Order: sequence, then C-alpha cells, then structure tokens
Amino acid sequence: MKEYLKHDEWCIIEEGFNPENHKSSESIFSLGNGKMGHRANFEETYSGPTLQGSYVAGIYYPDKTRVGWWKNGYPEYFAKVLNSPNWIGIDVQIDGHYLDLYTCQTENFTRTLNMQEGYIQRSFIAILDAGKKIKVDVKRFISMADTENGAIRYSVTPINFEGKIAFTPYLDGDVVNEDSNYDEKFWNILEMEAHPGEAYLLSETKKLGFRAGFGMKIKAQLEGADVNITPEVMKKEGWVGNRIEKEIKEGECFTLDKIVGVTSSLNYDKTALLAATKKVTASGFAKGFDALFADHVKEWYKKWTHSDIKISGDIAAQQGIRFNIFHLHQTYTGEDERLNVGPKGFTGEKYGGSTYWDTEAYCIPFFISTAPSDVTRNLLIYRYKQLDKAIENAEKLGFKDGAALYPMVTMNGEECHNEWEITFEEIHRNGAIAFAIHNYIRHTNDNAYLAEYGLEVLVAISRFWAQRVNYSEARKQYVMLGVTGPNEYENNINNNWYTNKMAKWCLTYTAEAIEHVKQSNPEAFNTISKKINLDDTVEVAKWNDIASNMYFPHNDELNVFMQQDGFMDKDQTLVADLDPAQRPINQYWSWDRILRSCYIKQADTLQGIYVFEDEYDTETIKRNFDFYEPRTVHESSLSPCVHSILAAKIGKTEKAYEMYLRTSRLDIDDYNHEAHEGLHITSMAGTWMSIVEGFGGKRVYDGKLYLNPVIPAEWKEYAFRLTFLNNDLEVIVSSKQVEVVSHATDVIELSVYNELVKIEPGKSSIVKVK
Amino acid sequence: MKEYLKHDEWCIIEEGFNPENHKSSESIFSLGNGKMGHRANFEETYSGPTLQGSYVAGIYYPDKTRVGWWKNGYPEYFAKVLNSPNWIGIDVQIDGHYLDLYTCQTENFTRTLNMQEGYIQRSFIAILDAGKKIKVDVKRFISMADTENGAIRYSVTPINFEGKIAFTPYLDGDVVNEDSNYDEKFWNILEMEAHPGEAYLLSETKKLGFRAGFGMKIKAQLEGADVNITPEVMKKEGWVGNRIEKEIKEGECFTLDKIVGVTSSLNYDKTALLAATKKVTASGFAKGFDALFADHVKEWYKKWTHSDIKISGDIAAQQGIRFNIFHLHQTYTGEDERLNVGPKGFTGEKYGGSTYWDTEAYCIPFFISTAPSDVTRNLLIYRYKQLDKAIENAEKLGFKDGAALYPMVTMNGEECHNEWEITFEEIHRNGAIAFAIHNYIRHTNDNAYLAEYGLEVLVAISRFWAQRVNYSEARKQYVMLGVTGPNEYENNINNNWYTNKMAKWCLTYTAEAIEHVKQSNPEAFNTISKKINLDDTVEVAKWNDIASNMYFPHNDELNVFMQQDGFMDKDQTLVADLDPAQRPINQYWSWDRILRSCYIKQADTLQGIYVFEDEYDTETIKRNFDFYEPRTVHESSLSPCVHSILAAKIGKTEKAYEMYLRTSRLDIDDYNHEAHEGLHITSMAGTWMSIVEGFGGKRVYDGKLYLNPVIPAEWKEYAFRLTFLNNDLEVIVSSKQVEVVSHATDVIELSVYNELVKIEPGKSSIVKVK
Repeated sequence: MKEYLKHDEWCIIEEGFNPENHKSSESIFSLGNGKMGHRANFEETYSGPTLQGSYVAGIYYPDKTRVGWWKNGYPEYFAKVLNSPNWIGIDVQIDGHYLDLYTCQTENFTRTLNMQEGYIQRSFIAILDAGKKIKVDVKRFISMADTENGAIRYSVTPINFEGKIAFTPYLDGDVVNEDSNYDEKFWNILEMEAHPGEAYLLSETKKLGFRAGFGMKIKAQLEGADVNITPEVMKKEGWVGNRIEKEIKEGECFTLDKIVGVTSSLNYDKTALLAATKKVTASGFAKGFDALFADHVKEWYKKWTHSDIKISGDIAAQQGIRFNIFHLHQTYTGEDERLNVGPKGFTGEKYGGSTYWDTEAYCIPFFISTAPSDVTRNLLIYRYKQLDKAIENAEKLGFKDGAALYPMVTMNGEECHNEWEITFEEIHRNGAIAFAIHNYIRHTNDNAYLAEYGLEVLVAISRFWAQRVNYSEARKQYVMLGVTGPNEYENNINNNWYTNKMAKWCLTYTAEAIEHVKQSNPEAFNTISKKINLDDTVEVAKWNDIASNMYFPHNDELNVFMQQDGFMDKDQTLVADLDPAQRPINQYWSWDRILRSCYIKQADTLQGIYVFEDEYDTETIKRNFDFYEPRTVHESSLSPCVHSILAAKIGKTEKAYEMYLRTSRLDIDDYNHEAHEGLHITSMAGTWMSIVEGFGGKRVYDGKLYLNPVIPAEWKEYAFRLTFLNNDLEVIVSSKQVEVVSHATDVIELSVYNELVKIEPGKSSIVKVK
Repeated sequence: MKEYLKHDEWCIIEEGFNPENHKSSESIFSLGNGKMGHRANFEETYSGPTLQGSYVAGIYYPDKTRVGWWKNGYPEYFAKVLNSPNWIGIDVQIDGHYLDLYTCQTENFTRTLNMQEGYIQRSFIAILDAGKKIKVDVKRFISMADTENGAIRYSVTPINFEGKIAFTPYLDGDVVNEDSNYDEKFWNILEMEAHPGEAYLLSETKKLGFRAGFGMKIKAQLEGADVNITPEVMKKEGWVGNRIEKEIKEGECFTLDKIVGVTSSLNYDKTALLAATKKVTASGFAKGFDALFADHVKEWYKKWTHSDIKISGDIAAQQGIRFNIFHLHQTYTGEDERLNVGPKGFTGEKYGGSTYWDTEAYCIPFFISTAPSDVTRNLLIYRYKQLDKAIENAEKLGFKDGAALYPMVTMNGEECHNEWEITFEEIHRNGAIAFAIHNYIRHTNDNAYLAEYGLEVLVAISRFWAQRVNYSEARKQYVMLGVTGPNEYENNINNNWYTNKMAKWCLTYTAEAIEHVKQSNPEAFNTISKKINLDDTVEVAKWNDIASNMYFPHNDELNVFMQQDGFMDKDQTLVADLDPAQRPINQYWSWDRILRSCYIKQADTLQGIYVFEDEYDTETIKRNFDFYEPRTVHESSLSPCVHSILAAKIGKTEKAYEMYLRTSRLDIDDYNHEAHEGLHITSMAGTWMSIVEGFGGKRVYDGKLYLNPVIPAEWKEYAFRLTFLNNDLEVIVSSKQVEVVSHATDVIELSVYNELVKIEPGKSSIVKVK
C-alpha cells in the first residue's frame, strides 16, 4: 500500500512532488470522456520515469503475438490499446532553459483531480538553476460536452526575476507503446501542417488503417489580457508545433491556452478527417477555454445527479466511491455500441483489448442501475454483433453446429489472448454474457430483446456448453474437464463448480427463452430457427438432460460446494497464516506453487453463490463464505467487491466494510502495487455494487426490486440513486432508517426488508432499519 | 509419411532431386563427429527452401526469451543451438553462371549417406541454360579421426561443351538462426584473413563470448593430377574465400579439394584460437583428402564393431537400426563431460538446449551397453557438476534446504524452457536422473561412484520430492499435485502415477544409498553429510514415511493403474476410432481439446511399468498395456520404443515389430511430418533399446544379465553386441536358437530364458528359442 494522497470528498490531492509516485499519479489523475482519454502526463518536458499514454476510443493495434511455444488455436495477434499522438505537449523555456520537474526543485506543489467538475490542476513554484523562481498553474480537461475537444490553460509567473518565457505547444505523432512486442512503432504520419497559432497532424495505424486527426489552436495572455505574439512555426519528424516567446516582468502572469480537436475515422470518412479536425479545433477555439469548461462542468453535474453515492462520516470511503464512479463515467458513456469498457480504460496499456467478461459481470450491473437502459442494451448488442466471430472462434477449437465461444479479450470479436489456460479454458465468460441478457431483461422488462437479439446468442452459447461437457461413464453424470474458473490461480482443473453452475443455468435459461419467444413471437421464432438451424426439440432435450445430470463437486463433511475436483487434497493452511512478506503471492511465488496452493485469486465458488444467491439459504452462503474467504488472497481487483456484497448479506458488516475499502481505494492506496500501470476500471463498477448490492442489499427477482440495507458502523449515512424499470429512486440509509425517495413519474412498488413499500411520484417513504 | 528414400542395408539413398524433399534430406543426410556437425546443405548456391545449419558442440546462445505473459520463476533466456559459420560453401560458376539445383534441370541425381564409412556423396548431371551439361560429383565427411577437420571433394566435368569453370570456396560468418526470437544475429566476426589457397575466420558469440575458428585450404586437380592455379583472394562482409577459374575441355574432370579446420574456445585459450585454427587446417591439408578419409573410415569400422545390429531378411528394419546408431555416434562420442546429447544433435535448431531427460532415460541405456563405462560416467558427472544450479533452480521456485530440481532443458545447468506446464511441472525428469545413477551402477558395479558423486545428487533430488508432495488430510496419504507427466498431452494434473512412482523409488533408493555409503565408506559419508547438512535420521525417516504412504491412483474395476486422478472421467473413444484426417492430433486439434482427451502422447504409466517391470507380473503389464496403448497416439519420438519393448515382453511380437519400424524409421519415413526440422536423435537410442531390450529381452537385475529373446516373423536372424560389467558379448538370435558369443576375457555368466549360461572367453553358447 502507498498512501500519499489526501482524503477529500470530491478531489484527489497530491501535495509535494515525489517522482517515485509520479507514474501512479499519472494513472490516478487520468482524464477521459468516453471518446478519448489520457494519463496525467505533464504538458512540459519531464525526464523522469513516466508512462506516456493518450488514447482514442476504438482504435487498437493487432500486434504480432509473442508466445513461448505455439499451440494450435492461438490467435495470430494480441490487440494493443494504442498510445496515440500526444496532444497535451507544451514545452516551457525560461531564459532558454527547459522546465523539467525531474531536475528542478519545487515548492508548494499541488496536483488536484477535481472529480465533481472533471479536470486536473497543478500549481507549484519551480526553483530553476540560477535560483530563479517561477510560479506555474496548469488546468486541463477533456470536454464531456464538446466531446472532440480538450483544453489546457498553462500559466507561468516569474517570482523573483524578469526573463524570457517561451511556450512550445505541439502535437507529437512519434509515439510508442511500451508493451510493443517487438519494439515496433504502430503509427504512420500521413499529414502535418503548422501555421502561426495552429497545427494539425493526421496519423494512421500501420495495420487496420485506423486514422486519427489532431489539431491545436493557441492563444497567449498576459495578466489575463490577450497579447499578440506571432508564433514561430515548428516542424520535426512526426511533430508539429508553434513557439511563442516573451520577456516577462517579475510578478506578471504569462498564460497559454491550447485548445485541441481530436477526431477518429470511426466517426468520419477517412478522406474528410483532416478537414473535420480543423473544423472541430476551430469550433473549440472559437468557444474558448472558459466557455468550453462551463459546458463541460454542466455535463458532469448531470452525471453526478444520477449516479453519485454520498457517504457521511467517512471521508476515505466517500472519496473512494466517487473516484470509482468518476472513472467509470470517463471510460464509457454508452452512446456508441462499437465501444466497450476496457479494463484499464484510458489509463494505461496493460491487458490489450477492451472487452473482458468484466463488462457483463461487473459493469452491466452498474450501468443498468445508473444509466438509461439503452446503455446496457448497447453493451449487449456489441456482443450480438460479434456472434459470428465467436462461432468462428469455437470452430477453430473444434466445436461445431453454431456453437459460440466468446473471446476472453477482444476488440472486434476476435480472440486476442494467448495463454492456453485462459484463452481456451477460462470459458465461464460465455456464462456471464448469457447472464447479462437475463439481467438486462429483469431490470427493464424488455422481453422483446430476446427475439430481436438475445436468443441467437443464448442458443450459440448453450450449444457450446452442450459440446464442452462430456458424459463420464465413471460418474454417470456430465462433467466439464480442463477449465480455468474465475480464480485464475487454478488452471486446467476439472469440474469447476462455478463454470458447471453457469453452464447448467445457461442451458435451462436458453430453453425457457426459446419457449418464451416461441409463444410470444412465433414468427420471429421461425425466422431465428431457420437462420440458426435450431431443432428445438432435440437440442432442448439434450440441454435439459445435461442440466439435470450435471456433476457438482461437494464436500459432504464440511457441507460446502467444492471449487473443483480434488480441492481438499491441497494443503489447507489459511491466508492469515501466510508470511506477510510473501504477499501478494503473485509477486513472490512461482506459478506452480500458486497453482498447487489452496489460495484463491478472486471469488470463484463465491462468485457463483453471488450470482445465484436466491437459490441458497443464508446458512449455506455463510458456510461457503467461511470456508472460501479465508483462502482468498484478493489479488484480482474483481475480488473484494463480491466478498463485500456476500459479507453484508450474511451479517458480517465489518468484513464487508474492510472489503469495501479495499475495492474502493484499490488504486488510490495502491493495494496491489500496480497503480502505475493504469487503473482497474472494470472493478470500479464492483465498488458501486458493493455499496448498492452489498450494504444497500439491492436485488431484483421476478420483476421486483428488493432492498435490505445495512450500514457500516463507521458511517453516519449513505445515499445512492437507482434506476429500476425506468423509475428513478434515491435511497438514503442511516443507522435508524431507510428513506426511499421517488423521482419517478408512476407509483413505485418495492420491497424493503421484505415489506412491500408503495411510493407516489415525488414522494418518499421511510422504513426503520432492521 | 513420406517414402522417397531407397531401402539399403548400409546407405540412405535419394534418387532424383525433388526440392520438396530437400529440407528433410538436409536433416537425414546430416554429418557430425561429436565435436561438430552440420545439415546436408549443398556446397554450391541453392536458392530453394533450405534450413542452413552448421553447429559446433557446446557453443550455444542465451537468446532473450519470448513468452505470452511473464510468470514468476521463468528463466530469463532460452538457449539456442547456434548456427555457426558455414564452412562447406563452394560456389560453382560455369561460364559465369552459378550452378543452382533449384533453377536448373538435373539428370541421374543420386545423394547417398554411407553410414558404414560416414560420408555423403552426391552425383548428378546438371543441364544449364544453354543446354550445357555438366557432371558433378561431391563427397564430404567430418573426420572421426582428426576431429577438427572436415573435407570436401568437388568435381565438375563438362559433358557437351568446353568452358570456364570457376570454384569459389569460402567461409561465411554472416549466418542466422531461423529460430532467433527477435531476428537478431548471434555472432560477431573478430578476424578474417584470406590468402591465395587459404582463408580463416574467427567468430565470437555476442553473449557468453564463445569463440570458434574456421580455416580452409584448397587444392585443384585436373583429371586427378594437381594443377596449379593461383586463386584470387576474396573478402566480403563476414565472408572470406578464394576463387579459381579454368577453361575446361569437354570430358575433363576439374576437382577442388577443400580441407577445413574448425576449433572452439571450449578447447583452446581464446587468444590462441586463430593460431590453433591455422595449425589444424594446415595439418589436415598436409594429410590430404584421401588419407584423412582412410583414417576416418577406420574409426567408423571400430564403432560398428562394438555397436552394430545386424538384421537379416528385412532391409527396411536393417537400414532403420543402422541409421539410428549412426546418428547417435555422430552426435555424442562420450569423451567430453561438458557435452551432452541434444535432442536434434547437429541436425537442426529446434528444442534449444542440449540436455533433456532423454539423456538419462534413453541414451544412457544405449551407451551403457555399447560403449566403455566412462562414457556413461561422463554423462552422469555432467549432471553432478550442475547440481548447484539445480539447487538454485529449486530455490527460485520456493524449495529450500538443498532440494534440487534439474532443468527440463539446459546447456549449462540453468533452465532454458519457458512454458510453466513443462518448466515447473514436468518434474519427473529428476527421477530419471536419479534412476540413471542406479542403472549405471547395476551395469558396472561401480559402487564407488555413489560416494564420489552420486549420493549428493540423490539426496538433493529426494529433498525435492519430500517438499514437492503434500499430505492430504482428505486421503490420509501423500499426494503430488500440479505435475505434467511424460505424456505432455496432460498438464497440471494431480497424482501422475509415473511421477509418484519415480518419487517413491528415489526416496527409497536414496535411503539405501545413504546406508551403503555409510557402511562402505564412513569417512566419505561424514564429509558429504557435513557438506550438505544431511541429518540422515530425521530426513530418511521422513522419506520412508512418504514412500510408505504415497498415494497411487488405481482403477479397481479395470484393475489398472490410473495415469492420474480423474482419468476415467474422460471420453474413452480409442485412437483406432479417430478420424485419420485429424492425425497427428497435435497438428489438427486445439490444445484444450488435446488436454481434455484421453489420448496419450507417449508412454506414461507404461513408462513406469517399463522402468519398474520387475515389480509386476506379466498379467498386470498386459492389462495396463491393453488399456493404455490403444489410447496412445505416439506423437513423441520417445513413445514407440517403450511400447515395442513392453509388447515384446508380453508376447505381442507383431505389435512390437510395428512399433519398432515406427521408432527406427521415424525420420527416414517422416512419420510425424517434421523431419525437415532435424532428426530425433535421442529417441534413436530408444530404437536400439527396442531391439536389445525388446526383442532381445535384455534385463539387468541384482548384478545379473538376463536375455529372453524373441524374433519378429519378418526377420531371419538378428545380432547385437552388448557390454555388461566390462564384458563384451555378441548375441545372435534366429527363430530357432540364441547364440551368445563371448569376446570377454573372463568366464561370463548370464541367464537366457531364465537358465544360467556360462561361457568361456572366446567361446559361445547356444540355447534353443523358447
């Protein structure tokens, strides 16, 4: 853990500059608006350790893959989240010397991420070589309103001298990915233009031909008043910019506004991209820094209105949840069905590819309750559109007859991952994708979705499961061999309880979905049946047979479900008895030692109990929680939230709180020593879940909303917003009462502590805490 | 399979040139003398598909490793068998045009590998562009007598024209490895010299600083008489040579002798290497092609005297066994304890690293019976000298207190392999290394070896097993989790019967070895005990406890040992019922499909039964053979030989013969479509085993030699030589009788068909076949 950031309700604040924390801060202070984003790299030269990262949504690179030993079925490429041309750059020279925070002294350094209004700000005094001091203030945002614009205001004030200050704002297309497999560059520069006061750069990826356009226009001010300096035009290899210089008196504030336009060939015809870039840059510039900022802030206030969670009495917890919600909004806005929620969003390169099962298992529960239903619908359609590729993927692995295996990691539907134990074996992802369809429908009643899109996906997934199991003559049951469960600290195991559970559920649910569409929309059903060659009698009978005769490992003595066959053969020393110096084990233990151990990376059997909680009584959940949690090292960001939810459910509120802090402050406090690589975006949705589903006890079964709130001892009160069946609710929980405020237009019915509550539009209802 | 080579008792013969077979032929016709070797690349320019390969024993390159996703414990590098400077090159020009078999027509093309005398010869008529025909004859060998010399005699005869013939003999240091991970070159050229009639090149590897020196001297002849042409001296980047040109009349034979010297910094002080190269080149040249060849052939006759196996009545079988023995001799001569038997020897790049468990499990049984005992002793000392690195390797993986895990693949004792399922899990290799010590001692009675070297290795290996197992509270027995057995088509399995068996044997044998050394050499024992901190009471007690309580999976219904836990959950469709179009499965199936299947790559449980055959009655062996062999796809070269041996043992002589052909002609007939990558050198020892241990029924137990010969119906007679306790025997088996001829100096006792036979020196004894 690393705790160098101040606790604050709405801001992340770093005081004093320490280069050792800089790469972590670059991640934590990242900005984005769903269309683009970047790490909090400095505008000016920085010669210290840094991970430069600027990203344009949907643009990726199919890097040549790198494996130790090729295995049949491996994908040819590993998609890389692509570091794109740097548009923030502004070199600063004072009397000819470059400002560089790695080499100069600083005083009063403060870096702030304002999450309420969505910007970063730095201010500091730099002490230069000859004892010259300058005050520097920088503010930067990527607009949530004008989504192709970003803006920077950079001010320098000489404190104890008069001298020449020069700004060199630029666009740099000569960028690299640190994780390039063969140290190759991924971009070609197509065009560069620079004129006094503006510059443009058009880049194209060397493969797939994605294009991105970058424009900048600049303006200088002295003491807040426009000042006319004709910029010098500059060009280097892959780099265009301007340079302005002026003699500045002691105490005078010299400011540069750099307004940027960023466009992508996802949104424009390729040939029109440069023109579009110029247009969007000009419109942003015409609006100006202050007006752009005002509109941007308005959008943020809207977002917070519908998704904020307020916690009183616990600033660390409050800061944590807002940090998570803030970054989720920055990563994905739900408007473009071609996009998805990358595990690191716009904050780092790691985990090439944008789409994991995280989307369905973690992000959809967040969006389905905080955003209009079409956001989730778009995420589901994303998978629907990639169904053909999932079928192709399954064919490559030897499956047939329209069986689909969705990829573990993908950009365009093709598998990108290349570890056999994940790529070929971590197949439970298929289950999450099916379950998300069910989850969407139960939150929206959009049953029509089944006929239009969902059923094809469900059938293809069920066909996969039906082929992936085999009948064990020895057990006289269906088994599923050679899988990796959510707990990736086990590979190639047999009968992972969670995966078997998911498979069984898929088969049953698909059979129900077929029946539903058949009844409700026979015409659509016939069309689908023909399209996908569905023999609903034979196939469904087979699925039912498998579902009824699926084998589930169980330990009768302990009366708990077994994560997999043979789990009890392992040494059962608990996590609490491990040497703390050996933690996290993934940084200290060899892979075989991890695999042989009983230690669990993230919820696995408990993930299944979380998903299918309604099937189990509290005692069963408790027994399994008490068995598995003490064996869990939580070395995946996706782990603590699920444990927090279950702990809250079974009355272990203290444990739930511990897990909540761990998930919500995972990156701020850098629990797993990896914040410098980027943030754990998808698990941030899990943080939201741990409050709303955990402490709030929100559930949806059979078209009905349930709340069973508890409150951690550390909190005075907490409040969250919730959308259910298009109704907007606000839930305020204190240690004494639960108040539900309706912002809906109809009368709302829900269950609080299993009591029916009806609320008129605009009214609220109060229930005592149980 | 690919059957383009003629059957012949002593030669491999290719008639007619087909570029499609050329890469396979380059492997099959490879030459070597233990110190160096090369693929049968052409001397002259060849623009078609080729794998250029020339290798100097003991010189390797630690190439930067390439993995999909880094895991703790992975080695930093993957050692590469290093393609070294090409010394065979002789460009041939006819009236200014290069001879290139890929672009010109040929007639009467014959390529021959003479295995009795150890050389390759090519003769053909090339039809050049203008209809000009030349006859070409080339003969090449690497001397077994003058082990730093190679020689080429290259003759060209214009058949239907008079014209200018030019030879350009050269040394080319600008070479690459095809398997370089990052397309880097591995050599620096340090010095190049060329003078009329000679040239020299000194190269150094970019890492580790191995040096190799290459020299050539040339001589021209016309119609067999020396002819004086002053060569033109030539130099290019990394390339030195000479050029001679002469107007040759129709029917005149123009010949170039190129005598080469090759030296290595393994054998000389680095600074003296160029001088040594000149010296060895000069001495080879002074001796001349014919005398070099005569001495070379003498050495080959000696080798054949002690190791030939004669088969009458079956040319394919005869050719097969000689091919295998020939290549084993070319790869390893047993004189240098720093060297080992690489799986591809000097015939290709694949499988970086020279030493696998193949050496102990396959090659030692061959050398221990066909070569002086110090050859095997050197192979054992090789591992003894690498014990420290094996202990370090185990420490990296979390083992302690002097436990050793020998690497899966190595050059210098460090692990080179980087697939976790092999590197960390295929640990049965430790068992093979321990068993080889036992095997050596039972064949030589060299019990002193234990005190001097063996015991330290055994203790370190037993310490490993004692930590690698864990006590299962559930089973109340010791289990071994997360291993890969010899059958690499299963990964990360629990309780691999073979590995558990090996571990148990090691623990027991080490305890016995301790007792033996303690009794026989108490002083040495005390020294060793102190050196390795051995507490023989506590440690041995622990080992005995583990050995007595080791868990072995068994299927009671079928009464067979189970390869691993859960094996019977798999679909049990037999290999015979697989679609032949899907074979070999490793070329058609995805890895997960292979892993889930019951198909076995190579003997696994049966490997254990082979090693510990004396513990099982024939019925048990038969039951297990009948269960496992029909599930075995034999996609490892190490598979058929073990099955052949067991089949012979249980009376399935036809099956044994089928497996014998498969192992002996694996590369000649290219069963697994991979001969072009190089030959399967180590499994060639297995071929020898399949005759001597299989058909011959040779066993050694308790210091006694047993023979139980059978003969395949296809053979009239077969004969092999055998060394046992330093006695040299010849065994001749026909369908009627077994004759054992003694070349020993003492009276020999052995058991034939379990009857005691005594033979006086120089006499023989005949037993009727049973």
